[in-house]
Amino acid sequence: MSPTFENDPRFEITSSDLRDLLSFVTSLARSAGDVILEGSEAILASGSVDEKKNSVDLVTEYDVRVEELVKETLRKSYPTFKFIGEESYAAGSRAPLTDEPTFCVDPIDGTTNFVHGFPHVCISIGLIYKKLPVLGVIYNPFLDQLYTGLKDQGAFLIRKNGQHRVQLPIAKPKHLPSLSKGLLGVEWGSDRSDPVIQAKGESFKRLAGNPHEGVVKGQMAHSLRSLGSAALNFCMVAQGGMDMYWEIGCWPWDVCAAMIIAQEAGCFVAGSSTSPLDNVASEDVLTGRKHIVIRAIGDSEDEKGVDAQKRLIREFYETVEDFPPAA
Amino acid sequence: MSPTFENDPRFEITSSDLRDLLSFVTSLARSAGDVILEGSEAILASGSVDEKKNSVDLVTEYDVRVEELVKETLRKSYPTFKFIGEESYAAGSRAPLTDEPTFCVDPIDGTTNFVHGFPHVCISIGLIYKKLPVLGVIYNPFLDQLYTGLKDQGAFLIRKNGQHRVQLPIAKPKHLPSLSKGLLGVEWGSDRSDPVIQAKGESFKRLAGNPHEGVVKGQMAHSLRSLGSAALNFCMVAQGGMDMYWEIGCWPWDVCAAMIIAQEAGCFVAGSSTSPLDNVASEDVLTGRKHIVIRAIGDSEDEKGVDAQKRLIREFYETVEDFPPAA
Repeated sequence: MSPTFENDPRFEITSSDLRDLLSFVTSLARSAGDVILEGSEAILASGSVDEKKNSVDLVTEYDVRVEELVKETLRKSYPTFKFIGEESYAAGSRAPLTDEPTFCVDPIDGTTNFVHGFPHVCISIGLIYKKLPVLGVIYNPFLDQLYTGLKDQGAFLIRKNGQHRVQLPIAKPKHLPSLSKGLLGVEWGSDRSDPVIQAKGESFKRLAGNPHEGVVKGQMAHSLRSLGSAALNFCMVAQGGMDMYWEIGCWPWDVCAAMIIAQEAGCFVAGSSTSPLDNVASEDVLTGRKHIVIRAIGDSEDEKGVDAQKRLIREFYETVEDFPPAA
Repeated sequence: MSPTFENDPRFEITSSDLRDLLSFVTSLARSAGDVILEGSEAILASGSVDEKKNSVDLVTEYDVRVEELVKETLRKSYPTFKFIGEESYAAGSRAPLTDEPTFCVDPIDGTTNFVHGFPHVCISIGLIYKKLPVLGVIYNPFLDQLYTGLKDQGAFLIRKNGQHRVQLPIAKPKHLPSLSKGLLGVEWGSDRSDPVIQAKGESFKRLAGNPHEGVVKGQMAHSLRSLGSAALNFCMVAQGGMDMYWEIGCWPWDVCAAMIIAQEAGCFVAGSSTSPLDNVASEDVLTGRKHIVIRAIGDSEDEKGVDAQKRLIREFYETVEDFPPAA
C-alpha cells in the first residue's frame, strides 16, 4: 500500500538506519522502564506528588527524571536530531516542527495511573521525520508490554524480554459491521470544565445507550473501556483488543509513537470530526489535538476494510459531541 | 481484628484445611487459565460468538467448557461441597444458599473482553462457608495476575509462576482525604435500559466533574477507569491500584472470590446505598447485587482508616444515583 521506504523520495534515512534506531530506542525504553518501576516503588512508599495545571493533572519528579535520561541518551548517540518532550515543552522549550529527524517523547504516559499504582503506565518514544512519525516504541514495564512500529516494516508486541514476539494485529482483522459490535476506548481526561464534562458524558451515554430505549443516537456498543493512557489505548487498538479509541486534547508526544505503531498494524488514524478522513499521513493528525483510531478491518464481500474504517469513524463522529481541546 | 479461624465457633473447616483447598483451587485456576488462553486464540481466529440476553451480554462455548472443567474437578476432590456457577445457574440450577461449603465460580469474568481480545479476563473461584466467602482465587492468564485470598490468612498477588509473590495491598495503605484524590472504577455494564444509562452517565459526570465549573455535586476525582471485569476491578482495589469500585448488577459468582481477596487486603466491602455500612461480613453483600469496595486506608491523626472508608463510601453514594439491578 505505502511506497517502500527506499522508493519514497522524501526520506533519506534508510530502512536499515531505522532498524538500527529501533534497536537503540528499544533498549533505551527498557532502561527508562526500570526507572519508572523504581519510581513507582518510591512513590507508593512515600505518596508525595506535585500537581500540574490542576488537581487532576499530575506530574512527578520521575516524569522529569525519565525525560532527562532519555533526552541525554538520545543526544549522545544522535546529536543532530531534534527533541520534543512533554516536560521540556512544559518548561518552555517550544521549537516548531521541522522536516528534520525529531525525537518526540512522553517520559511517563499515564501519570495518574503511575501515582496510584494502576499498572497501565508507559514510556513513549517516537521519531518524526519530514513531519510524520516513522518509528515508535511504547513500553509498559508493569505488564511487560513492549510495542514497536517502524515505517513500512510492521508493528510488534514483544513480551518476556523478547522471547515472545507477535506481529500486530494479533488476530486476522475481521469485519466490523457497526459500532454496536465495538469495544471502544474513551477517557474522562484532565480537562474537567463543565462544557467538556457535559459533552463527554452525553457522548458516552450515546455510545453505550440502546436506541430502542430512548437514548437519542444510541449505538449500544459492546462496551466502553478506560485504561488512562492514550499511548496504551492506541496500542490496544493496534493489537486488536479494542476496536476504536477517541480522544481530544492529546499532544504530539502522547500520540507520536502510538500513531506509527497503529498505522503499521493496519489501523486508520484520523484527526478531528471536521478534518477529511484521508488524512492518515498528514502532519495535522500529529499536531491537531483531536484523534480517533480504528483497528485493522478485513475486506468483506460488500466493503473494503479501509472503507469500513472510514464509515465507522464517520458514524462515531456523528454520535459524539465535538469540543475544543484545552490550551 | 477478625477472630482467628480456629476460635470462630461458626467454622469447622480449619485454617489448615483452607490452605490445602487454596493450593488445590490455585492449581485448578491455572488449568482453567490454559483453556481460556486456547479459547481466546480460537475465538480470535474464528470470530464466532453466541449472544446471551441481549447483543452486549455475550457468552461463548468456552464459558461453558471452563465451568464444566472446574465443576467436575471440584466434584471429584470435594464431592460433598455444593456448587454455584454462572453457566449452571443460567441453565436452571438454582439451589438456595446454605451454610454448607459451596464453591462459587465464574468461569470467565470479562466475557466481552475475552471475545474482543482485550486482556482483562479471568477465572474466578470462590468458596462460601456459612454463607460467607472464605477463599478466593482469581487468575488472569493474559497478564499473568493470580490473586488469592484466604479467611484470616491474607491476600496475595502471585506472578511469574510463583516466583513473584506479594501480599496485598502492595503499598502501605495511605490516607485518602476525599473522592477528589481517588482513582475510581466504574463500568457501563450490560444493562442498557434508558434509566440505567441516564443514572450511570449522570453519576460518572458528577464523579469526574468540577464543582466550581457548574457540575452539581462534582467531586473531580483524579479519574475514572473501566477494565470490564468486576472480579479484576475488585482485585485492583485490593492491590491498591484503584481507590474504589462501584457496581450494580453483579451476581455472587462475580464477586465471591473477589470479596474475600479484597477483605483480606484490608478493603471495606459494602452493599447498596440503603444498607448499613457495617455489613462487611454480611451475606447480604454477597447476594445483594449492589457492591462498593474501597481500598485499605491508613489511620491518620484525625481519623481511623475504617472510619475514612465508611465516610468515603457515604460520600460516594451521596454523589451517584441508585438504580435497581436487572433481573
